[in-house]
Amino acid sequence: MAEAHDAVEVITTKRDRGELADSQIDWVVDAYTRGVVADEQMSALAMAILLNGMNRREISRWTRAMIASGERMDFSSLSRPTADKHSTGGVGDKITLPLAPLVAACGVAVPQLSGRGLGHTGGTLDKLEAVPGWRADLSNADMLRQLEEIGAVICAAGAGLAPADKKLYALRDVTGTVEAIPLIASSIMSKKIAEGTGALVLDVKVGSGAFMKDVDSARELAETMVALGTDAGVTTVALLTDMTTPLGRTAGNALEVAESVEVLAGGGPGDVVELTLALAREMLQAAGVDDVDPADRLRDGSAMDAWRRMIAAQGGDPDGALPTARETHVVTAPRSGVLTGLDAMAVGLAAWRLGAGRARKEDPVQAGAGVEMHAKPGDTVTEGQQLLTLHTDDPDRFERALAALEGGVQVAGDGGAEPVPLVIDRVAG
Amino acid sequence: MAEAHDAVEVITTKRDRGELADSQIDWVVDAYTRGVVADEQMSALAMAILLNGMNRREISRWTRAMIASGERMDFSSLSRPTADKHSTGGVGDKITLPLAPLVAACGVAVPQLSGRGLGHTGGTLDKLEAVPGWRADLSNADMLRQLEEIGAVICAAGAGLAPADKKLYALRDVTGTVEAIPLIASSIMSKKIAEGTGALVLDVKVGSGAFMKDVDSARELAETMVALGTDAGVTTVALLTDMTTPLGRTAGNALEVAESVEVLAGGGPGDVVELTLALAREMLQAAGVDDVDPADRLRDGSAMDAWRRMIAAQGGDPDGALPTARETHVVTAPRSGVLTGLDAMAVGLAAWRLGAGRARKEDPVQAGAGVEMHAKPGDTVTEGQQLLTLHTDDPDRFERALAALEGGVQVAGDGGAEPVPLVIDRVAG
Repeated sequence: MAEAHDAVEVITTKRDRGELADSQIDWVVDAYTRGVVADEQMSALAMAILLNGMNRREISRWTRAMIASGERMDFSSLSRPTADKHSTGGVGDKITLPLAPLVAACGVAVPQLSGRGLGHTGGTLDKLEAVPGWRADLSNADMLRQLEEIGAVICAAGAGLAPADKKLYALRDVTGTVEAIPLIASSIMSKKIAEGTGALVLDVKVGSGAFMKDVDSARELAETMVALGTDAGVTTVALLTDMTTPLGRTAGNALEVAESVEVLAGGGPGDVVELTLALAREMLQAAGVDDVDPADRLRDGSAMDAWRRMIAAQGGDPDGALPTARETHVVTAPRSGVLTGLDAMAVGLAAWRLGAGRARKEDPVQAGAGVEMHAKPGDTVTEGQQLLTLHTDDPDRFERALAALEGGVQVAGDGGAEPVPLVIDRVAG
Repeated sequence: MAEAHDAVEVITTKRDRGELADSQIDWVVDAYTRGVVADEQMSALAMAILLNGMNRREISRWTRAMIASGERMDFSSLSRPTADKHSTGGVGDKITLPLAPLVAACGVAVPQLSGRGLGHTGGTLDKLEAVPGWRADLSNADMLRQLEEIGAVICAAGAGLAPADKKLYALRDVTGTVEAIPLIASSIMSKKIAEGTGALVLDVKVGSGAFMKDVDSARELAETMVALGTDAGVTTVALLTDMTTPLGRTAGNALEVAESVEVLAGGGPGDVVELTLALAREMLQAAGVDDVDPADRLRDGSAMDAWRRMIAAQGGDPDGALPTARETHVVTAPRSGVLTGLDAMAVGLAAWRLGAGRARKEDPVQAGAGVEMHAKPGDTVTEGQQLLTLHTDDPDRFERALAALEGGVQVAGDGGAEPVPLVIDRVAG
């Protein structure tokens, strides 16, 4: 189908700061997926892309080629518009859990294809699997039926979507080429566009616990992804949100489900509620629905209803008791004062080491493991007061989790720095 | 032996413009040779090195690590000093053939470990294999004996020298990472240093028919290699020499052997004689021999004697008839005037397509194929006069050879540009 090229010619074009032609991109992505271009050729190209960049046309074409490598879903038969959300990953980021049923309750269908966690940030599927009986794998027909009937589905992305991305992501992971904005953006967007959503809201995290450590690179990633969505005909908006401290008061699978249910019940931590509503409003607006206030749907219980139906439709028991860890360990305030720092990366690493995350993709996770935070930055604390509770099934893990927290928790005599706003910026097409 | 590192850590260090530590270089070269670092990791590192460079310490260490990957030869038991020559490759570059016996006749031993040609430049072993009976493969003991008795040996480099380079070179060839000066320099120098020569003269070619197209990059490569040799205790000098037009009047295996014998007999083309003598003087000086003029040894027949003994010692018949091609085709001057251009790359490609070179390393070469040049730039020519004779066993090849020459031969009414000097510059440690 694609015009034939030669791998060395494509690599040297980008190596020498040239622009890749559409036909070069189509060929190299397709040939790599088919195994005609070898791993060692693609990794050299990925490094050249990382160091020399790609322009908007190249990234757009690359994304299109990755989409063309697999199947594409189609939700145009649904009676309501669709909107999806993607987060670049943060600690305690359970927003998808209350957000999907909330937006569904507002009349917009949410087809949320998610992944499992790897590293210090949790995966949405890992969290939901803490709910007794809930299953992540749905057929396309079941997904479509659930979207029509309930309006929200959170399930595993099938292997058929953007297989080129799957192969390339695994390669980048072992070749030092993960941190290329064109490749990060096209990886995320190829899956989201192939998934067939009509609108997309991106939550691009910035800070110690996020992939992007500074606002400038987060904004560059956000702008690149918004451009890709726009080029593909998907209404796309991005919020840049703070990830210097964890979201909410929990990091861990069952702990985060419980917190999400609190939010759906009208309570929950202020930052989780704030971000859930901000993203819901963006999704509704992007989907063309402007006559509903999602705060009303939290208040009147319809978001909770959608949650219960969504969980039940995938075999879960919304009233079932969530798993708890066998062991806990409490961290107390070393002095009285104000909690000035609770580092997202430190908490994320601690939760990971307690068993909430996995080191290799075939590892299991502990449903009950994680970190509970009894105070957040800005709170006044008294010496000896409980700051954190660590949860795990395996008490041998406490030591390494505590080591991860070393230096990540700061209590000062005075008020410390001004708090960072949760939503830092907004990028639209 | 080497301190353990992680491939991604080494790759990202260079990707982020850091300097590689000695222990990182030792580890990655060793681990790659053992297959612990995968091809896709090494190619990403090679691309990062190509784009971000290495400093003198890094290149020196990299070269040392490649030498350490294999065996190292030792000629210190010889009764005379040793000197070797390496050319970066050019069209019609048969200089090694007269040079090695000439320098041997001057009292310096020449251990010339060579390769076969790939692409448009010929390989020294391919040329000598045109001599009936001559064989390239010698044991180390035979090589040492021949060096002691005759003073010159031209033979195939064993697989034991710098195996890391062998593996890395094959990888670079398919991943667009050949053109990295640190990797080119360390590839050449690791083999030459492992070979055990006491002195080394580098002939760095510049121009259309050479790997380096401009003087600045050729000088950078020369300076890098001279520094590497100096760091390793080998007296190293480089000449930058012109390769915009072929050397001598022949390009092709048997054709070049015949021309080399003419030079040893006291005749031959002026440029071949000039460069042979220039390189011989550099080799003698580098080896500490300053009381012999190589021009005398050409004149008195002792260089020819050394050639005959060297050929005979490796099974060749110095009086045997050289193979000739079955078919010839003559290219004539399209007008009268001065030959202003005879492009080295055009002639090199034509000779390659006629069968003198190979496209893949397992291909055979035709001993008789090549291009004979009856005029050189600066010569006055008459319309219809013979300019070139193309030789091949397979007349189907003429068409593609003539296409390669298209635009490569220019005859002008007036004198054209000033000739470029053959030796452009000299770089010493």
